[in-house]
Amino acid sequence: MAQQEDLFKKIVSHCKEYGFVFPSSEIYDGLAAVYDYAQYGSELKNNIKRYWWESMTLLHDNVVGIDSAIFMHPSIWKASGHVDAFNDPLIDNKDSKKRYRADVLVEDYLAKIEEKIDKEVAKAAKRFGEAFDEAQFRATNTRVLEYQQKCNEIHERFTAALNDNNLDEIRQIILDCEIVCPISGTRNWTEVRQFNLMFATEMGSTADGAMKVYLRPETAQGIFVNFLNVQKTGRMKIPFGICQIGKAFRNEIVARQFIFRMREFEQMEMQFFVRPGEELQWFEKWKNLRMQWHKALGFGEKKYRFHDHDKLAHYANAATDIEFEMPFGFKEVEGIHSRTDFDLSRHEQFSGKKLQYFDPELNKSYVPYVVETSIGLDRMFLTILFGSYCEEETSNGETRVVLRLPAALAPVKLAVLPLVRKDGLDVKAREIVHDLRFDFACQYDEKDSIGKRYRRQDAIGTPFCITVDHQSLEDNTVTIRYRDTMEQERVEISRLNSIISEHVSLKSLLKRIEL
Amino acid sequence: MAQQEDLFKKIVSHCKEYGFVFPSSEIYDGLAAVYDYAQYGSELKNNIKRYWWESMTLLHDNVVGIDSAIFMHPSIWKASGHVDAFNDPLIDNKDSKKRYRADVLVEDYLAKIEEKIDKEVAKAAKRFGEAFDEAQFRATNTRVLEYQQKCNEIHERFTAALNDNNLDEIRQIILDCEIVCPISGTRNWTEVRQFNLMFATEMGSTADGAMKVYLRPETAQGIFVNFLNVQKTGRMKIPFGICQIGKAFRNEIVARQFIFRMREFEQMEMQFFVRPGEELQWFEKWKNLRMQWHKALGFGEKKYRFHDHDKLAHYANAATDIEFEMPFGFKEVEGIHSRTDFDLSRHEQFSGKKLQYFDPELNKSYVPYVVETSIGLDRMFLTILFGSYCEEETSNGETRVVLRLPAALAPVKLAVLPLVRKDGLDVKAREIVHDLRFDFACQYDEKDSIGKRYRRQDAIGTPFCITVDHQSLEDNTVTIRYRDTMEQERVEISRLNSIISEHVSLKSLLKRIEL
Repeated sequence: MAQQEDLFKKIVSHCKEYGFVFPSSEIYDGLAAVYDYAQYGSELKNNIKRYWWESMTLLHDNVVGIDSAIFMHPSIWKASGHVDAFNDPLIDNKDSKKRYRADVLVEDYLAKIEEKIDKEVAKAAKRFGEAFDEAQFRATNTRVLEYQQKCNEIHERFTAALNDNNLDEIRQIILDCEIVCPISGTRNWTEVRQFNLMFATEMGSTADGAMKVYLRPETAQGIFVNFLNVQKTGRMKIPFGICQIGKAFRNEIVARQFIFRMREFEQMEMQFFVRPGEELQWFEKWKNLRMQWHKALGFGEKKYRFHDHDKLAHYANAATDIEFEMPFGFKEVEGIHSRTDFDLSRHEQFSGKKLQYFDPELNKSYVPYVVETSIGLDRMFLTILFGSYCEEETSNGETRVVLRLPAALAPVKLAVLPLVRKDGLDVKAREIVHDLRFDFACQYDEKDSIGKRYRRQDAIGTPFCITVDHQSLEDNTVTIRYRDTMEQERVEISRLNSIISEHVSLKSLLKRIEL
Repeated sequence: MAQQEDLFKKIVSHCKEYGFVFPSSEIYDGLAAVYDYAQYGSELKNNIKRYWWESMTLLHDNVVGIDSAIFMHPSIWKASGHVDAFNDPLIDNKDSKKRYRADVLVEDYLAKIEEKIDKEVAKAAKRFGEAFDEAQFRATNTRVLEYQQKCNEIHERFTAALNDNNLDEIRQIILDCEIVCPISGTRNWTEVRQFNLMFATEMGSTADGAMKVYLRPETAQGIFVNFLNVQKTGRMKIPFGICQIGKAFRNEIVARQFIFRMREFEQMEMQFFVRPGEELQWFEKWKNLRMQWHKALGFGEKKYRFHDHDKLAHYANAATDIEFEMPFGFKEVEGIHSRTDFDLSRHEQFSGKKLQYFDPELNKSYVPYVVETSIGLDRMFLTILFGSYCEEETSNGETRVVLRLPAALAPVKLAVLPLVRKDGLDVKAREIVHDLRFDFACQYDEKDSIGKRYRRQDAIGTPFCITVDHQSLEDNTVTIRYRDTMEQERVEISRLNSIISEHVSLKSLLKRIEL
């Protein structure tokens, strides 16, 4: 566990040091839970976007993309349920005046008990091999059983309280568990109240007052309200999908874990419109397709798992998460939901407009059912870092840090390095960059020893290093060094373009997804 | 003029009908001055972004991109001057309770006088050739002179008032001109007050209260505050640039002209950091480079002009606009500004952090000077529509509407059309799509006559139509039809990929920019 947390910290600092992610507004001491993508991070993020967008729009002739605005008519969030029900339960400590998410207080408490169980077990395990002390083992066993029972009881009450939206019961659990404020150390708690997670702002300025609008908390509604416009102008036939990449905003009270949970984040969502009754088949299809998309990145099958939801949201009749193994456990990176006709029907009701599709084969009109796939782009970015980051010992006993990024996603595709900065090697190297620059993101680097330069490229995940030496001037060959194996090969300069193209094109990734 | 307005209306409705741009939240009767990019519009917009991004990052080894968050520390907008000075002067009519931009009331009034002058002149011009009536001509001349004098006087007072931020004088001009409210028809005006254009929202929720933050009104500040982080982690040497594409928000009171002025819009900005004293050379370089970027699109040299600023903002020592000829006149699409060290110095002052660069060649540290290039992406999108939209008469006397989009920017690169939907032509056509889909955005279309299908592709700007006929089954050839000339050519299916690649790659556009 400690090792995993350590890994997480290392990756966060790697992101800062090597220009992937910076804390926002850092010279002003930062803005909580907001981050900026730096020079390599923004390229990596753009490449992830393209991989997703092309997998949706190029591989499916019945999926098209849109880009709807962040501002939308406020009634949309009434219809979607966000105005009334997109809340977090908050509680204040009267002594410290600090505010907490009530559910997080309980979850943290449960996590602490589980930690205690782990410690007891670990301690007992160490005693094996020493003189056997029956009394001690029995005592340990009793304590573990007690902890487990307590944990289960509270977990059960807590789940029920959340489902029933019973705020008083959540407060009672906090009191019963004797949870104290980490600042004041007291149990002097207020009532639990609901707090809406949408950011609001005022648009326009008339003498009668401005209009209250929200920053969208999800991109999906932008697709629903455009459904008929796209269907008609694009002459789409059901089944068809609409996808979108864009920013969404949630005023999380406790935003944390780097870019895992941010207040401003980016989603990649696709809504697939189907005949009522056929949604569960499509749900299965998309579930598998999406898993293939993730696995095509090559981080290994074991890194992923499905987590099917037992308890479904009121609008869904099937739901699953694709989870990725992060240093802090398996966590959701994408959700696939069969959302029924809930959203379109609500928009019919609130807008007073028909949102029906005329199905020429069935010769009737209906409100389509919807299967949604929804990824957090920033989380996806994080899984790619977790999957890529390696510390290795090299043959000469040094440690190298290497990002084993899929070549198609790497921010820099190749670095061109003159062995020395003289004898015309630098000129030759620059010529190679000049010839390849229209096709690939290239970097020229002439500073420090060749070994140091290789390490720098390893650290940002550059798949190919091209070294120009004296022989290059004679026979127009260079060495190409492969990031992952560190093997080197002598090749003709004229072949570079085709060798590299083959590996770094998105096409190579897309072809791994079986349709 | 009427013809030009007509053209503008046609393009707006073309955007709606053919899936380029939809009014936002249309089923809820829209949200003023907010638009969504539809299935073809989003692809066109993405292609414009890539053209810009690659022209910055691939063609210049000293320009890198970032993607900073929309939310930033509020002190940044104090430092930049936006909290204190990013205002519009507003005035209310006490009878109608309607609010107006005071400066726009005056501008509209001036435009009306100019219109009157034009009308007088046009009327007089028509009388040439009729019997000459000296008295009448003299009267016209007097009226025109009077109008012109009035116009000049008001224009002078108005410019001075704006420069001095003299709100009372602006109100006095409105009174002196006897400008009435279009709703109530009265001159019962309030004082003129300043109204800040930034959208504000509340972030977080502590018992002590939330933090007021703004939606960024420009992307540039995200670059300035990250300047040192990028320079250090990217080992950049001056001169170097940082570019960014992202959303910005301005609470315009009068947002209008479709996507020309929106409240939520997207910018493509680049800040180039240079040695103090060298900024004007770089300003000239970027001015020319940016113009080449626009002209590479092939809409004709005459569509563009520079508009150098006579009156400079307090932070600038040179500024120019690149203007494009829109149906409503030459309008700014990009600004190039020599911003001196204003922004970085202000951030030094407000953050208390040094923002200096150590120049190894000069062996000293300094705050760099900055040359900025800043395009409105939505305006750029609009210029491309204006440059591309054509109505032509065909040889058979019909009108075809064609978008002559640069092939590299077209949302769909090729359409594959079976001549008839039988005899296996449809199967053959789908095979072609299947083979090419990883490389190009393809569309398969089998519905309606071939002529109608060509027209539909013309209307969305598809550069190539591939028609599969009976001969195709025999000899694996197809006809390729070129959008602009409507010429057709018989080619082998195996050659399609290379024929099309050559025309549609961004590389072909980028190569037109001389460096």
